[in-house]
Amino acid sequence: MTFAIGIIGAGVMGADHARIFAEEVPGIVLQAICDADQGRARKVADDTGARNVVGDPPALIDDSAVDAVVIAAPDQFHAPLTLACIAAGKPVLCEKPLSQQTKECLAVLEAEEKRGKRLVQIGFMRRFDPSYAEIKAMLDRGDLGRALMFHCFHRNVAPAYDFRAEMAICNSAPHEFDVARWMLDSDYKSISVFRPPNGGETAPVFMVLETLGGHLVNIEVNISATYGYDVRGELVGEKGTAFLRAPVHADVNLGLKQINAYPADWRPRFVDAYRQQNRAWVKSVLTGKPNPGASAWDGYCATAVAEAGVEALKTGKTVPVQQIAKPKFYS
Amino acid sequence: MTFAIGIIGAGVMGADHARIFAEEVPGIVLQAICDADQGRARKVADDTGARNVVGDPPALIDDSAVDAVVIAAPDQFHAPLTLACIAAGKPVLCEKPLSQQTKECLAVLEAEEKRGKRLVQIGFMRRFDPSYAEIKAMLDRGDLGRALMFHCFHRNVAPAYDFRAEMAICNSAPHEFDVARWMLDSDYKSISVFRPPNGGETAPVFMVLETLGGHLVNIEVNISATYGYDVRGELVGEKGTAFLRAPVHADVNLGLKQINAYPADWRPRFVDAYRQQNRAWVKSVLTGKPNPGASAWDGYCATAVAEAGVEALKTGKTVPVQQIAKPKFYS
Amino acid sequence: MTFAIGIIGAGVMGADHARIFAEEVPGIVLQAICDADQGRARKVADDTGARNVVGDPPALIDDSAVDAVVIAAPDQFHAPLTLACIAAGKPVLCEKPLSQQTKECLAVLEAEEKRGKRLVQIGFMRRFDPSYAEIKAMLDRGDLGRALMFHCFHRNVAPAYDFRAEMAICNSAPHEFDVARWMLDSDYKSISVFRPPNGGETAPVFMVLETLGGHLVNIEVNISATYGYDVRGELVGEKGTAFLRAPVHADVNLGLKQINAYPADWRPRFVDAYRQQNRAWVKSVLTGKPNPGASAWDGYCATAVAEAGVEALKTGKTVPVQQIAKPKFYS
Amino acid sequence: MTFAIGIIGAGVMGADHARIFAEEVPGIVLQAICDADQGRARKVADDTGARNVVGDPPALIDDSAVDAVVIAAPDQFHAPLTLACIAAGKPVLCEKPLSQQTKECLAVLEAEEKRGKRLVQIGFMRRFDPSYAEIKAMLDRGDLGRALMFHCFHRNVAPAYDFRAEMAICNSAPHEFDVARWMLDSDYKSISVFRPPNGGETAPVFMVLETLGGHLVNIEVNISATYGYDVRGELVGEKGTAFLRAPVHADVNLGLKQINAYPADWRPRFVDAYRQQNRAWVKSVLTGKPNPGASAWDGYCATAVAEAGVEALKTGKTVPVQQIAKPKFYS
Repeated sequence: MTFAIGIIGAGVMGADHARIFAEEVPGIVLQAICDADQGRARKVADDTGARNVVGDPPALIDDSAVDAVVIAAPDQFHAPLTLACIAAGKPVLCEKPLSQQTKECLAVLEAEEKRGKRLVQIGFMRRFDPSYAEIKAMLDRGDLGRALMFHCFHRNVAPAYDFRAEMAICNSAPHEFDVARWMLDSDYKSISVFRPPNGGETAPVFMVLETLGGHLVNIEVNISATYGYDVRGELVGEKGTAFLRAPVHADVNLGLKQINAYPADWRPRFVDAYRQQNRAWVKSVLTGKPNPGASAWDGYCATAVAEAGVEALKTGKTVPVQQIAKPKFYS
Repeated sequence: MTFAIGIIGAGVMGADHARIFAEEVPGIVLQAICDADQGRARKVADDTGARNVVGDPPALIDDSAVDAVVIAAPDQFHAPLTLACIAAGKPVLCEKPLSQQTKECLAVLEAEEKRGKRLVQIGFMRRFDPSYAEIKAMLDRGDLGRALMFHCFHRNVAPAYDFRAEMAICNSAPHEFDVARWMLDSDYKSISVFRPPNGGETAPVFMVLETLGGHLVNIEVNISATYGYDVRGELVGEKGTAFLRAPVHADVNLGLKQINAYPADWRPRFVDAYRQQNRAWVKSVLTGKPNPGASAWDGYCATAVAEAGVEALKTGKTVPVQQIAKPKFYS
Repeated sequence: MTFAIGIIGAGVMGADHARIFAEEVPGIVLQAICDADQGRARKVADDTGARNVVGDPPALIDDSAVDAVVIAAPDQFHAPLTLACIAAGKPVLCEKPLSQQTKECLAVLEAEEKRGKRLVQIGFMRRFDPSYAEIKAMLDRGDLGRALMFHCFHRNVAPAYDFRAEMAICNSAPHEFDVARWMLDSDYKSISVFRPPNGGETAPVFMVLETLGGHLVNIEVNISATYGYDVRGELVGEKGTAFLRAPVHADVNLGLKQINAYPADWRPRFVDAYRQQNRAWVKSVLTGKPNPGASAWDGYCATAVAEAGVEALKTGKTVPVQQIAKPKFYS
Repeated sequence: MTFAIGIIGAGVMGADHARIFAEEVPGIVLQAICDADQGRARKVADDTGARNVVGDPPALIDDSAVDAVVIAAPDQFHAPLTLACIAAGKPVLCEKPLSQQTKECLAVLEAEEKRGKRLVQIGFMRRFDPSYAEIKAMLDRGDLGRALMFHCFHRNVAPAYDFRAEMAICNSAPHEFDVARWMLDSDYKSISVFRPPNGGETAPVFMVLETLGGHLVNIEVNISATYGYDVRGELVGEKGTAFLRAPVHADVNLGLKQINAYPADWRPRFVDAYRQQNRAWVKSVLTGKPNPGASAWDGYCATAVAEAGVEALKTGKTVPVQQIAKPKFYS
């Protein structure tokens, strides 16, 4: 009766997923937490009431007491662990990106199709954010006329210690690649990449994408924005435009200033999105009905764009986005 | 192991509580829904997966399969049903107001104290709203200096068909009475009531309260504001002020206007508050640890202010707020 | 052909008037600046190109080269100097308040009527502020339905060294008394005054006024608001409400905050209002056509309310506002 | 003593300039209005008190009673008329663009240098807008760290009847080309141009420019934005960002919406900028001191970028911006 979840990875994201499932998602049991660092896994289990700590991902995936798996391990393990879940026939919610190589993504697509059942959801949680969802609803109702452009801004306080410009494209921008593709219901045709030279090594990356549906998607990824975690977006339609509004709970007047706070990272900004996503995933697994979440195919598409983006960054040219034809299995 | 909840009342609030418990609160089971209108109870049960429908409140309260009770019946049943829950020794989350007569509230206080255990939480959910909570946190940290005033605005689209001015004070304003008392950590000393004569029968009610702690609390209750459901508030401190910011997900540009939507009723405005309240209540009952929610004593205090307010409305005078001394049981 | 203006007072307001006339108002000549402190007068004259410096107000008023007079001297000289201008038959723009005693105001009304010509405009410049004007236009068009309430907030960074609570009512609040009376097109019936005891000597003053037209006007004057110079207002109508929006030129993101600046005093907030007022006054004098500015009668009315307010502050009672019948001369 | 201005062109811009000079700029006389349509010129003269109507631009320029000239004629006359003013040795404020051909601009530069005196100011009024000016001041003080990018959005309600995409680049974007160049204090290196194909003939034009100083300037010109006249901008620095805030005077609550109005054209948005520009121009001519306004050289630079932009639009390639070396005369 109860639906038992195992979580692989007890870092920032894994701990947050465990907390969300424990506190916000009815109808599930946290069966096991797995991390190479057992102390970290133990702490998350203690904080959330998860039943077991497991040292080894295969042990978790193959545990008959685990009905479904959440992958929040480092990026390079996403695809291999997803393949293991498919092999075990277990539904999996895999953090983004599915992989940074399309080759690996294709292996997942192939395995899932062979298994004959849709088991994989990718953690592109922005699809569940109330702001993106509200704008998509407006667009779908025709309130804004036909979509023309989507301006996206993705800003972090500070870069990772080993930051390279490719990471802005492969690691951060896939959120925008996916959510804009979902918003506009169109795949990408090409990508151009620009950077302001005087920003040095951590300079923002600015991308201009054209979609097959005839839109422009313009994305700033600014990994060293300093001032706060800030995700903005404006959908430009023929009849009007709509902006994302980030959650702010208070306006404060102090010291000759009116002030709103920015969060230091993405969790407060997307707290609703993660909760909705995780609830929708459980519901979808239990009922067999689809949700707006991203499939393995969507994960592949985001990676295909990122690969083209990295080439555009290196060559300074507009690079076509290459994708295989969409398998019927994902229609 | 599972904690079974029964809900009395399947109207707007009862249905919403059922939905919240079913979708957003882990660790509970919806055991029974009770409503005089059995079809309505049945519909809520079907929508939320509640196990049973019960025709009669006492049957629900006394059902050994029910661990705790939510009262969302019409106002006049709040106190009697709460007394029945106390008699049955069951934790109860009672919608506000506890009663519109202090006499009834006092009976609940007495019964609870006699029973020797705190069983009652009143549904003043604003204490769990992220905006009020953030401002209270600022105030408690000293960011704003000492509190001086709290300006409150409470606006509804349209009045109930049988609206009378007293209802603005007895039925709507208790939300402000409670949340300001909680925010400022002070009881009330007196209340004055004003109305703009040219507003006719549904004119806004404007109240000025002085607290025992030396603050002013100014409250507009505007039951016929027409333009939307809108709750505003500004805490004025010695060093600065802070405003509540209502949740808005998108800014839209259309037809020579920039537009944000207002909700038509309170549910979208306080969706977070209700979820947090209901989760906190369950956690509190299970762990025995207190939460920021309102006790039966707080329910009594809100009603005591409302009674003074009604007299102030009738007499046009500043009326002192009369309260019994706080029983040790509630400290 | 040129219209020559003399300014009495070279303090903050006088200097600002001189600057506005010199830089922003075509068709005039700054003929003379007068101040007890001749050095101060000289500096203003040098900064603005004014022709002369005059030591003595009567000398300025009687100077045949001066066509019209601006009074920006200390408050106690407003009425006597205005009377001198009337006696000289010269148009005068007198800073608010006309006087802090109704008795003095009545002397001005009498003198002006006897002279048989409207010569006096009071510097209630908010009537020319684009925000107040836009809301009044909406109200007059019926966009908001019938007006019910006007919530006003008037905040200064810090009190004058000799601040007493009466000054909030006699010196600051007249701006609100006048602009609300103009907005609602109604005189006042009564006033009640409240203060939060824990604010000490500089505590905000909160006033609730009822108009003869059946509105409520609620005014916070907070002379020690610390955080900035901030004037807010919300007109509540039957169909909707409208807020004043202060001019802000940039939103800045820095250090985990989104920030807008508040000015430290009223000049940046009302820079447009003063310019429009002074231009309208000159135009009105030259053409003989009226403008939305305040007359001596309006000056008297503001003082009458302030007198009632001081009594309400002292007695803690609701005090009726007493006014003479409006002379036909001012219709 | 009085400074006499003649205005060539009595269309929307010419009429607005006449109004501004008549109502807002002290120290000048409107001497003459010139328009091919004499009735239109007559109307403007009557509305503003201009002394004469002149049928022919040369007659106005050569009129000894005219001290300085404002050119608000159609674009193709800007350069020839500016040359005529230089020949007559008269200061000229020429509406943007100086010309749509760099060749013509160069002829003006050459003539002005030969004349040996700076006589030309181009009407890039945004340099005087309080929002741009405030952000530039922040940047110059170092508040935002080194500038990295400037995102610009320029939206009109509806296109001209004969709109072609080149016009977005040659006619609208020069405002952004100039103001970003001024803000960043850097010339341009290259320009890339994109358009969303599904926008059809009036699709927005999106430009990415790299400056010689190492910044990116991204410009959307959306000539058919429908929803309002809207100019936005965000300066992205190393330490923070700053947004332009357009003037809004009231927030209105009506019909389940909070609403601010957009203007239908640029005049209300830039009312302050035009006034400040025109005052600064007069002051500069009278005192011989420079102001922040654009020179003929700045006019040439904006046109050089526009020419590269048109080529980039046609070829789909990134096009280098070609400029002559800056003559010492303009340093």
